[in-house]
Amino acid sequence: MTDHGHSSHQLQLTEDGQLRHFLTLDGLDRQLLTDILDTADSFIEVGERTIKKVPLLRGRTVVNLFFESSTRTRSTFELAAKRLSADVLNLDISTSATSKGESLSDTLLNLEAMASDMFVVRHSQSGAPHFIAEHVTPGVAIINAGDGRHAHPTQAMLDMLTIRQHKGAFEGLKVAIVGDVLHSRVARSQIRALNELGAAEVRVIAPGTLLPRDVERLGCSVEFDMNRGMKDLDVVIMLRLQKERMEGALLPSEREFYRLYGLSSDKLALAKPDCIVMHPGPINRGVEIESAVADGPQSVILNQVTNGIAIRMAVMSMAMGGQVADRNRKQSEVVQP
Amino acid sequence: MTDHGHSSHQLQLTEDGQLRHFLTLDGLDRQLLTDILDTADSFIEVGERTIKKVPLLRGRTVVNLFFESSTRTRSTFELAAKRLSADVLNLDISTSATSKGESLSDTLLNLEAMASDMFVVRHSQSGAPHFIAEHVTPGVAIINAGDGRHAHPTQAMLDMLTIRQHKGAFEGLKVAIVGDVLHSRVARSQIRALNELGAAEVRVIAPGTLLPRDVERLGCSVEFDMNRGMKDLDVVIMLRLQKERMEGALLPSEREFYRLYGLSSDKLALAKPDCIVMHPGPINRGVEIESAVADGPQSVILNQVTNGIAIRMAVMSMAMGGQVADRNRKQSEVVQP
Amino acid sequence: MTDHGHSSHQLQLTEDGQLRHFLTLDGLDRQLLTDILDTADSFIEVGERTIKKVPLLRGRTVVNLFFESSTRTRSTFELAAKRLSADVLNLDISTSATSKGESLSDTLLNLEAMASDMFVVRHSQSGAPHFIAEHVTPGVAIINAGDGRHAHPTQAMLDMLTIRQHKGAFEGLKVAIVGDVLHSRVARSQIRALNELGAAEVRVIAPGTLLPRDVERLGCSVEFDMNRGMKDLDVVIMLRLQKERMEGALLPSEREFYRLYGLSSDKLALAKPDCIVMHPGPINRGVEIESAVADGPQSVILNQVTNGIAIRMAVMSMAMGGQVADRNRKQSEVVQP
Repeated sequence: MTDHGHSSHQLQLTEDGQLRHFLTLDGLDRQLLTDILDTADSFIEVGERTIKKVPLLRGRTVVNLFFESSTRTRSTFELAAKRLSADVLNLDISTSATSKGESLSDTLLNLEAMASDMFVVRHSQSGAPHFIAEHVTPGVAIINAGDGRHAHPTQAMLDMLTIRQHKGAFEGLKVAIVGDVLHSRVARSQIRALNELGAAEVRVIAPGTLLPRDVERLGCSVEFDMNRGMKDLDVVIMLRLQKERMEGALLPSEREFYRLYGLSSDKLALAKPDCIVMHPGPINRGVEIESAVADGPQSVILNQVTNGIAIRMAVMSMAMGGQVADRNRKQSEVVQP
Repeated sequence: MTDHGHSSHQLQLTEDGQLRHFLTLDGLDRQLLTDILDTADSFIEVGERTIKKVPLLRGRTVVNLFFESSTRTRSTFELAAKRLSADVLNLDISTSATSKGESLSDTLLNLEAMASDMFVVRHSQSGAPHFIAEHVTPGVAIINAGDGRHAHPTQAMLDMLTIRQHKGAFEGLKVAIVGDVLHSRVARSQIRALNELGAAEVRVIAPGTLLPRDVERLGCSVEFDMNRGMKDLDVVIMLRLQKERMEGALLPSEREFYRLYGLSSDKLALAKPDCIVMHPGPINRGVEIESAVADGPQSVILNQVTNGIAIRMAVMSMAMGGQVADRNRKQSEVVQP
Repeated sequence: MTDHGHSSHQLQLTEDGQLRHFLTLDGLDRQLLTDILDTADSFIEVGERTIKKVPLLRGRTVVNLFFESSTRTRSTFELAAKRLSADVLNLDISTSATSKGESLSDTLLNLEAMASDMFVVRHSQSGAPHFIAEHVTPGVAIINAGDGRHAHPTQAMLDMLTIRQHKGAFEGLKVAIVGDVLHSRVARSQIRALNELGAAEVRVIAPGTLLPRDVERLGCSVEFDMNRGMKDLDVVIMLRLQKERMEGALLPSEREFYRLYGLSSDKLALAKPDCIVMHPGPINRGVEIESAVADGPQSVILNQVTNGIAIRMAVMSMAMGGQVADRNRKQSEVVQP
């Protein structure tokens, strides 16, 4: 699969600019990103109710199509769908349909024929959700739940929601992203969103071996020295050290990595006093982050988890709304040619 | 387990001739098969709604009791049950209860005691759903989701629904079933249904090594040459080549099989111009069927999938209705002895 | 993890003495145990309805957190939660979250942040549900679904419900618990409940190798000879022979065990004529119990299964009620300081 980023905004938006898939943050403008955050804000309140349900997707069928296992991500989408009152079907494709030698596109055609309304797709290959969105019939919304190193756009948006909750606005903010940018699904999406939403500066802090080539072209400055990089920060986003993805000896050792790029209380003290600390989880305590920092007053890590449900409810309900608008528009075109 | 076909119609029908289990097509007359198709037709519309739910099984507990894994079949039953508003419990028995050494009948007694209303049973042994239906307490409906080589009656019925949708009626139709009849779960059910519903001719087309002995006694003609067999056909039903069930060298090679019995555009051209093409899926492209045929204008393969949900909703709701009628009848007998 | 039984009753009860977790029977007085049985009785009727649902946990999220697989126990909790109208998330923790090296307490914090209302916990280590209850934030109810050898309190309570249904009251009853008391999760809970509810005598019948040291201190008499032990019994509770937990040669052989401690028709004849026979399942026929006894008129084994759903509905709804009462009390304290 090749990179389809170029045409993504045409694919994931309706003619009127509404979301109908949620594949990538590329091509989504500040207004639409803000709409997603505002919609998610309205769902935060739902999570605090005794009855945590809204009927927006009642009678809809959401299929969690995981070509790569991720219990944590699948659980958040499953809860989000259930709180929208959808029926949920979990399919672990890595172990099932393909074992009978069926092609991906035949599997998809079959699921569509079962009158599914939405596929939440997780895949190890970049571009897979995009490929699927190009090939499904109109009416089925595709939500990207993480594809290769390419994007994990709901994670980036829940981070934006968390920043806005704590800082009020993005204007003037200095934000650093620290750690394994090279293997991160989410760093690229975060840089894109922060720039679009108006952050003053996005900084990546990492050793050269963990940075993509030409990383500055994504819209960020680069700092190899974390002590210098922490200066004046409003937000520090730690990345998970993807041990399972590290190929061979890109790093000297975990201990050495922690000494240089782990977020200790000492390093955090170099940022602004009200700098918030973020991490996508699961945390490797003592590898990327000191326990006292992860559990400390500046940490908003658990707010991120709560916001993750709200963001997923937001993009699912907005994409479904876009599909319905598409269908209504086409039907009215048929009626009045 | 032995073949219980003889007494099936007594077991699966109430005194008034209503369905109370759905085990086999044997013993179901044209009227009842037509009732199932009519009921399924009414559910087709439900699948096209925004809110794809009807409350027929609300508050009922449906247990998917799969002694043999089949994600595809399990998913269609799970969706059908959820669209009927039932609560669904998925049990993969192959890996769970029996690991503690419990007998099948003890497992069933336990599930019944949990106030289950319906078991959807998939088993590798012929007659297992029948055995279970004989041993459950009254009130619990059993639906056969495929047992050994014996039957896969919901698959056969979704095929009938698809044929009726495209051809209007069965009278006068010439239908061929092509391929591995010997190892097929569904061919026997298809032949039975087509004859009962009034098809003019049912033909099986296969090499002698892939035919059961005395296949003609099932109510079909036999043709070894596919080019001759395609003549005058209204419907051609391709069977999946069950590679995993083929024991040793019944066939020279996949390539040779395709040359002789694969459905190519050339062979399809020998049938009537409006002959429809069916396949239960998953498709082995280039083994049983040419891609251009599977995706071509005469193919109704994806309609079969859509119809599969509707047929499963139909037999589940009808069997539950039969169980309720049974109970009411018995209660009124107690009151007025 | 150490034994936390000492402070359990403070942890699992609100200031007003309502249940807010359900961890152990220790510290629950006769009134509260009776409330649980009365509440379960009211749910028995729900299981007999066509629509087996009550809206008590509608919109609530229940997470089945199984650190140790048990399809049977998980299924009963899943059904109970669904009949209370909750949304259910099944997490098999043994194979998922911990594989990324996350600590138990981080996993819990994440699940809480997803706005979960209840964790049903199964763990191989004694005290794990207690540990979790100590560490979750207020508002999340913990239900013990079996921890190590320590307790399986819903099993003990469903046994009490079954006894009360058949005997009317506990006063004057002579009850024996037979078999592998040493490795049993439930025997300790049963002895505690029977004493608290007023049974006249609790007897354990087992070889010395299958008894915990100082078993009498739990509140029971001990009998090594089953023929003597059966005398005058109103209730005999057989334990499952936990073959998988038996370490080495505590027993001569299964055959020898059955001869000495298996419940045969002959031995049952030594009890009162209306003595009921109980077993938690799954049954090892011919090891702990003769088939004719398990299936005979004195057996109430399947009633136990039915009662299991009702008891689980009772403790889940009562614990949720206690959490709500806790929250309301705290909010009113804030308002009126």
